[in-house]
Amino acid sequence: MYFASDNWAGAHPKIAQSLAGQASGFAPAYGTSDLDRKVEEKFCEIFGREVSVFFVATGTAANSLALTSVSRPGGVAFCHRESHVVEDEGGAPEYLSGGMRLHAVDGTLGRINPNDLLAKMAHFDPKFVHSGQPVAVSITQSTEIGTVYSLDQIEAIGAICKEKNLPLHMDGARFANALVSLDTTPAEMTWKRGVDFVSFGGTKNGCWCAEAIVVLDPGRAKEMPFIRKRAAQLFSKSRFIAAQFDAYFADDLWLETARHANAMAARLAGHMERSPKMRLAWKPEANEVFALMSSAAAETLQQKGVKFHEWKLPAGFSAAGVETGEKLWRFVTSFATTEGEIEAFGNLAG
Amino acid sequence: MYFASDNWAGAHPKIAQSLAGQASGFAPAYGTSDLDRKVEEKFCEIFGREVSVFFVATGTAANSLALTSVSRPGGVAFCHRESHVVEDEGGAPEYLSGGMRLHAVDGTLGRINPNDLLAKMAHFDPKFVHSGQPVAVSITQSTEIGTVYSLDQIEAIGAICKEKNLPLHMDGARFANALVSLDTTPAEMTWKRGVDFVSFGGTKNGCWCAEAIVVLDPGRAKEMPFIRKRAAQLFSKSRFIAAQFDAYFADDLWLETARHANAMAARLAGHMERSPKMRLAWKPEANEVFALMSSAAAETLQQKGVKFHEWKLPAGFSAAGVETGEKLWRFVTSFATTEGEIEAFGNLAG
Amino acid sequence: MYFASDNWAGAHPKIAQSLAGQASGFAPAYGTSDLDRKVEEKFCEIFGREVSVFFVATGTAANSLALTSVSRPGGVAFCHRESHVVEDEGGAPEYLSGGMRLHAVDGTLGRINPNDLLAKMAHFDPKFVHSGQPVAVSITQSTEIGTVYSLDQIEAIGAICKEKNLPLHMDGARFANALVSLDTTPAEMTWKRGVDFVSFGGTKNGCWCAEAIVVLDPGRAKEMPFIRKRAAQLFSKSRFIAAQFDAYFADDLWLETARHANAMAARLAGHMERSPKMRLAWKPEANEVFALMSSAAAETLQQKGVKFHEWKLPAGFSAAGVETGEKLWRFVTSFATTEGEIEAFGNLAG
Amino acid sequence: MYFASDNWAGAHPKIAQSLAGQASGFAPAYGTSDLDRKVEEKFCEIFGREVSVFFVATGTAANSLALTSVSRPGGVAFCHRESHVVEDEGGAPEYLSGGMRLHAVDGTLGRINPNDLLAKMAHFDPKFVHSGQPVAVSITQSTEIGTVYSLDQIEAIGAICKEKNLPLHMDGARFANALVSLDTTPAEMTWKRGVDFVSFGGTKNGCWCAEAIVVLDPGRAKEMPFIRKRAAQLFSKSRFIAAQFDAYFADDLWLETARHANAMAARLAGHMERSPKMRLAWKPEANEVFALMSSAAAETLQQKGVKFHEWKLPAGFSAAGVETGEKLWRFVTSFATTEGEIEAFGNLAG
Repeated sequence: MYFASDNWAGAHPKIAQSLAGQASGFAPAYGTSDLDRKVEEKFCEIFGREVSVFFVATGTAANSLALTSVSRPGGVAFCHRESHVVEDEGGAPEYLSGGMRLHAVDGTLGRINPNDLLAKMAHFDPKFVHSGQPVAVSITQSTEIGTVYSLDQIEAIGAICKEKNLPLHMDGARFANALVSLDTTPAEMTWKRGVDFVSFGGTKNGCWCAEAIVVLDPGRAKEMPFIRKRAAQLFSKSRFIAAQFDAYFADDLWLETARHANAMAARLAGHMERSPKMRLAWKPEANEVFALMSSAAAETLQQKGVKFHEWKLPAGFSAAGVETGEKLWRFVTSFATTEGEIEAFGNLAG
Repeated sequence: MYFASDNWAGAHPKIAQSLAGQASGFAPAYGTSDLDRKVEEKFCEIFGREVSVFFVATGTAANSLALTSVSRPGGVAFCHRESHVVEDEGGAPEYLSGGMRLHAVDGTLGRINPNDLLAKMAHFDPKFVHSGQPVAVSITQSTEIGTVYSLDQIEAIGAICKEKNLPLHMDGARFANALVSLDTTPAEMTWKRGVDFVSFGGTKNGCWCAEAIVVLDPGRAKEMPFIRKRAAQLFSKSRFIAAQFDAYFADDLWLETARHANAMAARLAGHMERSPKMRLAWKPEANEVFALMSSAAAETLQQKGVKFHEWKLPAGFSAAGVETGEKLWRFVTSFATTEGEIEAFGNLAG
Repeated sequence: MYFASDNWAGAHPKIAQSLAGQASGFAPAYGTSDLDRKVEEKFCEIFGREVSVFFVATGTAANSLALTSVSRPGGVAFCHRESHVVEDEGGAPEYLSGGMRLHAVDGTLGRINPNDLLAKMAHFDPKFVHSGQPVAVSITQSTEIGTVYSLDQIEAIGAICKEKNLPLHMDGARFANALVSLDTTPAEMTWKRGVDFVSFGGTKNGCWCAEAIVVLDPGRAKEMPFIRKRAAQLFSKSRFIAAQFDAYFADDLWLETARHANAMAARLAGHMERSPKMRLAWKPEANEVFALMSSAAAETLQQKGVKFHEWKLPAGFSAAGVETGEKLWRFVTSFATTEGEIEAFGNLAG
Repeated sequence: MYFASDNWAGAHPKIAQSLAGQASGFAPAYGTSDLDRKVEEKFCEIFGREVSVFFVATGTAANSLALTSVSRPGGVAFCHRESHVVEDEGGAPEYLSGGMRLHAVDGTLGRINPNDLLAKMAHFDPKFVHSGQPVAVSITQSTEIGTVYSLDQIEAIGAICKEKNLPLHMDGARFANALVSLDTTPAEMTWKRGVDFVSFGGTKNGCWCAEAIVVLDPGRAKEMPFIRKRAAQLFSKSRFIAAQFDAYFADDLWLETARHANAMAARLAGHMERSPKMRLAWKPEANEVFALMSSAAAETLQQKGVKFHEWKLPAGFSAAGVETGEKLWRFVTSFATTEGEIEAFGNLAG
């Protein structure tokens, strides 16, 4: 029962097969092959407009370089207080941007509160040299705690960005899970709501290593090839990424794997709601499920082979009230989660 | 006839198969899986001592982060004038180190001349704040123009580094090709001659994406996990790199593929020597072959399907004397080069 | 009535005179003159131990380079939420350190709360690569809002730093004002309480431009000459800084000017306490005084020639309770403030 | 006899006096005082057009931040092989720009050879991500070895920059010495010949610390206030720089001090030409004079109180031919050099 993270899974068989199909033969390097081109066109099709696509090695790279492209030392990017970009990148955004600052914005259930965003922004006068200058806003979709911004919520933040003339970045490490959760299209979830850059993640949803920076307005992508190269993120055999995305998009495999992961999460949540040993912390909207239980209860599960980790309580969390002895635990499902695992968990939790 | 670069090839079937074998199942992420551990131990075995190993996405990353770990802004690293690190990394070493300088050292046939290295070093007084402070020396093995440092030549540079208390880095993007060319062991070619860090490349020799920083003295590796993470080079599904190296090392596959590439290069060189249409620029010692011929002759070959590129004449090159109209062209062989391709080239060159 | 800032003043006549005395004659450059040496020895005497001293151009430079010397990208330095280093340096600490992060710690009246410091530190596991690594703690003495850490309060933070093996930096832009407020010695206020680096400011207390990084353990200063030079902070005619410090320290002028400024602040606060038009926000302990009053009341004063600025309410401020329409205003005194100015203010406030 | 450097001198009495005049009184900080404004207008007048002026602490800062404003990591700035920016800034340009590279261009007598500049530029394809991208050209006027670019020579480089769409920076640490040597105007020597940025130095020509970045097209200066602040180069009591420049420009004092220094250099050179103990290396055109003599001869002079330093032989220097045992020595004159010193030197050299 592997709920530790969606990056503990391997690769979807179709993606592994697509990659294996590239083993023989020769092709131009550094992203200039026909397959690279084909996948780039597929991205344009999926996003319903011309976009620029840059494969990189990790989600950390996608986030950091997207922000770097619009940033400068002394710049301030706004993100949610518990977002991955501020909590789990080892300082990569600050380092790769040469000293940009990430400014935490509050909001319940993992989503930036637009009013708090405005309040935090108001602290900075773009002409005052002593404080920093706002350069970007970054949201995570789905969020770090398994919730999803509605289209209206994205639009509200997009409107603030437009008014302040700031680019809006979306950390889409779990883009597909959010997309199918909202039952919408990439266009509706991004540029039609004001998003300018997407960190488009495939790794957590069935690929081995397939991450891309998608620049929704190619006019903003001019510097990106240089930014990527100097950050040591330009693969020579780029087509081994392309081959993964090729299969990922074929016959909407990516939507299928995301739907599966979300469905498994929902069933997992159902077991938690019915369990006497734990409580569901909040309703999952993608593929991450959070439960409140005692350390003793968690250890019992872990001893029986359930893999999952403790999670930090969100700032200001008190929705359900945390009782004495209760801690927060994260469970993540993926394309590789089986119904059998869910049922086995249900039996242990019951 | 694909001689454009060894990174135009795909992956060796055994490596592709090893990777595919990881598609199913779950394993801890970020380099903590059993397979990661197994491959790390294999590196220790191959190098004949305890070493620390850090997978990264590209050779650019391996070079830049190895140098970053011993560098600081205002630091000066010495490398050959035509080395990859100074010519082809898009500024990554300077950027990722926060402003280290690369200082070009001269030397014939792609190898640093120890006397010129000493002369260039003499320019810097380590206590004088106005000039930079020497921080490292980097050599490329095999070199950017297909030659190989002998063990004595490495030792001579290693001795200078020891005397000056500077770490010695080896860019081993084509490590295996040099190793089999010298018919020696990794230990003899590296730490026994004074090398402290190796950028260990697998990509050009049969992998899709398998690059590692090998720190030969683990005591020097303490900061590297943080350096790698903040540089966005820590793969979540790290085992997909490990799986490639696992097959790469099994039954000495890596030596076999390197020997094949070198043998193909030698035969290619033979055809050039016998050709009335071109001249061999210098004797290849690994898997890169350089020829002098007119643009017209090159175009004729290219029109017949031979893939190869023009190359910049090395500074001070005059070994054979370049005649009017002659240009320098590079041909690269790999594990995937076939005897048939070599023969077909021989027919065109004859 | 100039209460806008202590950097609106010019220079104390004795300091101006000392500088003028250096106009003629020749001396070695870049900090190697006899006068530089003499002043360095004076610093050792004042601090009661061997220290290393580095003149720099601005307080921003002193803070940023002191932190840079112990930092690295991905490092996290803890400072008070309203400290100058995080609020007013235009991103210099992040930029010059290549991407260090400043982490805000809370605490009332401008002082870091040790418990909150420990809580914030607990978030970071020094071995976990995904979050940052703590590298330093920075406190401001006197604080940004005119209060002063007691010796015990410094010691409490110093003890935490020692336990966590982190260096402790003191932003002493108003070092002298705090020193005379506590009626103590530099040794007691710094290294005897665990402080490792001081940004020693002279500019606000009677110099034109005299800032220094004082490294209390010279063993930690090895890299500083290079750090300063590469940051473009090494003056060629360094003795024009030395000459200011020479007069600053002679006959304890610096303590005299600080005592004067603090005394003027205390009298200003007295007028505010007695005023029907404003309320004293909190008791000043150095040379900054904060008042609560309406915008209308402030404007009236400003129209009558009183120079002062609005100030941001400290997070969580509610000591006196802020009534509707009240805003916070800062008044700063200096060596140049006259009793006449204070009396004139008293008349306007009465 | 102080010929070690023009930064061993103190300050011109009129400049010291102007500064002392600012000791009393109050004025807005951070460059917003009336005096700051007045001096900025004076710069516009001197340059014959609207310019933007930014005071900084050192020539290193002026050079590095001017280049930073047009640079980016992976960028390549071209400068003369022996220029100060590459030889004597301790890595500041690379550090402050976040990893720009300085590319050495050759040329006799300290001046960039336009043909070599073109040849070096030709190595870089602005669209090729693997090599760097040219971002700027920097020339030094007067040069590091006391020669001066003629207006035509500046224009030739300016024309290359225009054609390549690259900004042209002039390191004017000895701007005034070059200006009076050419008997021309700042406008003719800069923007009318294609110069976009000037590091305008006053320190070596009679000030204590007066350096400025002059942006000749204010449209290019938009980011500079933020760049300066985050680099810790914004003085709070900025008017103490302004006061120096105020006196520097009054009644053309700066031209007078420069003419004096140049005249002293010419007379010094005359003594060298007539000396049996040394040879003039090349004709000085500003305030630096270079002589060839044996170490023994140099020591004799030094023992008699003449201060001067050995200098590195320029690459490719052979104008006069260097005879066995001869070394190169630099002598620098300044506003403070007296005729008496020159005569005393003449007696020793005769």
